[in-house]
Amino acid sequence: MKKIKVIQYGLGPIGQAAARLALQKPGIQMLAAVDIDPALTGKDLGQVLGGKKLGIPVLASIADLPRRMKPDVAVHCTISWLEDALAQFVELAEAGINVVSSTEELLCPDWKYPQLARKLDRVAKKNGVTLLGTGINPGFVLDTLPVVLSGVCLNVKKIHSKRELDAGTRRLPLQKKVGAGITPAEFRRRVKTGRMGHAGFIETIALVAKGLDWKLDKITETIKPKIADRDIRTKFLTVQKGQVTGIHQVCKGIQGGKTLIHADLQMYVGARQSLDRVIIHGEPSVRCVIEGGIAGDEATVAMLVNSVPLVQNAEPGLKTMVDLPVPRWLKA
Amino acid sequence: MKKIKVIQYGLGPIGQAAARLALQKPGIQMLAAVDIDPALTGKDLGQVLGGKKLGIPVLASIADLPRRMKPDVAVHCTISWLEDALAQFVELAEAGINVVSSTEELLCPDWKYPQLARKLDRVAKKNGVTLLGTGINPGFVLDTLPVVLSGVCLNVKKIHSKRELDAGTRRLPLQKKVGAGITPAEFRRRVKTGRMGHAGFIETIALVAKGLDWKLDKITETIKPKIADRDIRTKFLTVQKGQVTGIHQVCKGIQGGKTLIHADLQMYVGARQSLDRVIIHGEPSVRCVIEGGIAGDEATVAMLVNSVPLVQNAEPGLKTMVDLPVPRWLKA
Repeated sequence: MKKIKVIQYGLGPIGQAAARLALQKPGIQMLAAVDIDPALTGKDLGQVLGGKKLGIPVLASIADLPRRMKPDVAVHCTISWLEDALAQFVELAEAGINVVSSTEELLCPDWKYPQLARKLDRVAKKNGVTLLGTGINPGFVLDTLPVVLSGVCLNVKKIHSKRELDAGTRRLPLQKKVGAGITPAEFRRRVKTGRMGHAGFIETIALVAKGLDWKLDKITETIKPKIADRDIRTKFLTVQKGQVTGIHQVCKGIQGGKTLIHADLQMYVGARQSLDRVIIHGEPSVRCVIEGGIAGDEATVAMLVNSVPLVQNAEPGLKTMVDLPVPRWLKA
Repeated sequence: MKKIKVIQYGLGPIGQAAARLALQKPGIQMLAAVDIDPALTGKDLGQVLGGKKLGIPVLASIADLPRRMKPDVAVHCTISWLEDALAQFVELAEAGINVVSSTEELLCPDWKYPQLARKLDRVAKKNGVTLLGTGINPGFVLDTLPVVLSGVCLNVKKIHSKRELDAGTRRLPLQKKVGAGITPAEFRRRVKTGRMGHAGFIETIALVAKGLDWKLDKITETIKPKIADRDIRTKFLTVQKGQVTGIHQVCKGIQGGKTLIHADLQMYVGARQSLDRVIIHGEPSVRCVIEGGIAGDEATVAMLVNSVPLVQNAEPGLKTMVDLPVPRWLKA
């Protein structure tokens, strides 16, 4: 079997975890990593990952890739926002490298960035490569999974999905990210400045609509704080009664005044449980529960690496999870 | 939008329901139906479905299709067994017609019929058509869905899926099919003569193994009766204590003495609940429950018709649910 030649683009926490996973797959040959951090470039990827040298260089840019290296796929983990990652996608595509990315807004950019989406599709096709945004949320729980489940229906009226996550059992950065321990006023201030909230939620709705061929009039999004009704102590911090425990974000896809897609995301400390739920209201209705929820960080990394062969074998263009064959674990 | 031209091949209960659904889709143009039953041929499809004439003929064979009719896809619902349907698939392929079929053994014939699978793949490719077997079980709950859910995993050790169905809430033919009300001796006799049991279970295991690239040493299958521990009355019949309430069928995919795939199917009257459950034992583990289960007959019909555009747009060859893009409801 011919190995798929991969580069890891971006060595933040998710990028490092993706590299670590990709290195375990016998079917993947890791050629190099790319990161702009001068503290990392010039090192060996193995060292950056806290292990022994692997003979895999960390480069400052793909322009530094030795000519003999012809990567098939870049696993791209840099930033949530499409506009900020755009030049990176174009550069990778023009170098003839397929991309699977954790950039949340790449999941389905048609809605918010139709022009950029067309541009990326053009560049990808011109260079014979595929671009895919994926992950667990966005990328699976509230978008791909509902689309898949709708496949058993004669008719679908509405999709209602929910992800509730007990942030108290998760790492400190996540607890801080959702605002655990801040005041409601501070929460609202952060929302206003765009510094609060889960990225890629609009794209989740857009992807479900694309999969089901629903033409939406609008997508709405609200972000509210969850407030502690008692003191809550986690391993890392304490939230006092009246302070923020986390975030409650709701996104709706609306057509003709009717909500066709309703996605509800709650991430907070003190939740009684973690759980993912998708309800397809239709004929038949489908009520799917993932007990305990799907763990975000490791599953996102899994989705990225598991998608490598699917992206490698896909038709050129800007693709989405509903264009590609069904996701599946990559054994090797 | 160009309509997809469809013929309905086979007008048993599932075929009729599929035709009824396909007729509701604005994106599908039903050209004709085919059935060998002389009581149906020569009639109009609308009449066969118990409605008004539609100007859609029911033909005895695809050889009777008028030359001007160039169907894109046949929705094929005739029989469970690959060998019995083989000539029909070959005939359809040679007529240049893509096929989506409820034939359970077409789901993933590589395991039981490797030579026939290669032959069908050859014939399909030669004639530029796609052949797909699908449905709800086999086709979704215990095979496609587990593969999809494995996509979130860094590692998968084992897949354990279960479908438990309260036959007491279903139509009489299903209650009879699972043996409700017969004696255990009669049940065993029927099993021996191959007249008892759910078709396509081996193929369910084979499809999961294909999706996850697991090379199995063997697939085992057991069929046992469920026995009434009390008298059970349904709308249609009464099962006395000691009689059979239904079927308990287990299929395992085994590699190196280890069970990698374990699928458990229970269909009987008197079940406390209907439910589908998939557990992926891995990193992370995923525990997915479909509360109430997915109703078999209507969902099978939905899977068939929803797959029409996916089959129409697929590469030629004998394909499976893990080769095609994710399933989704066909709106129009």
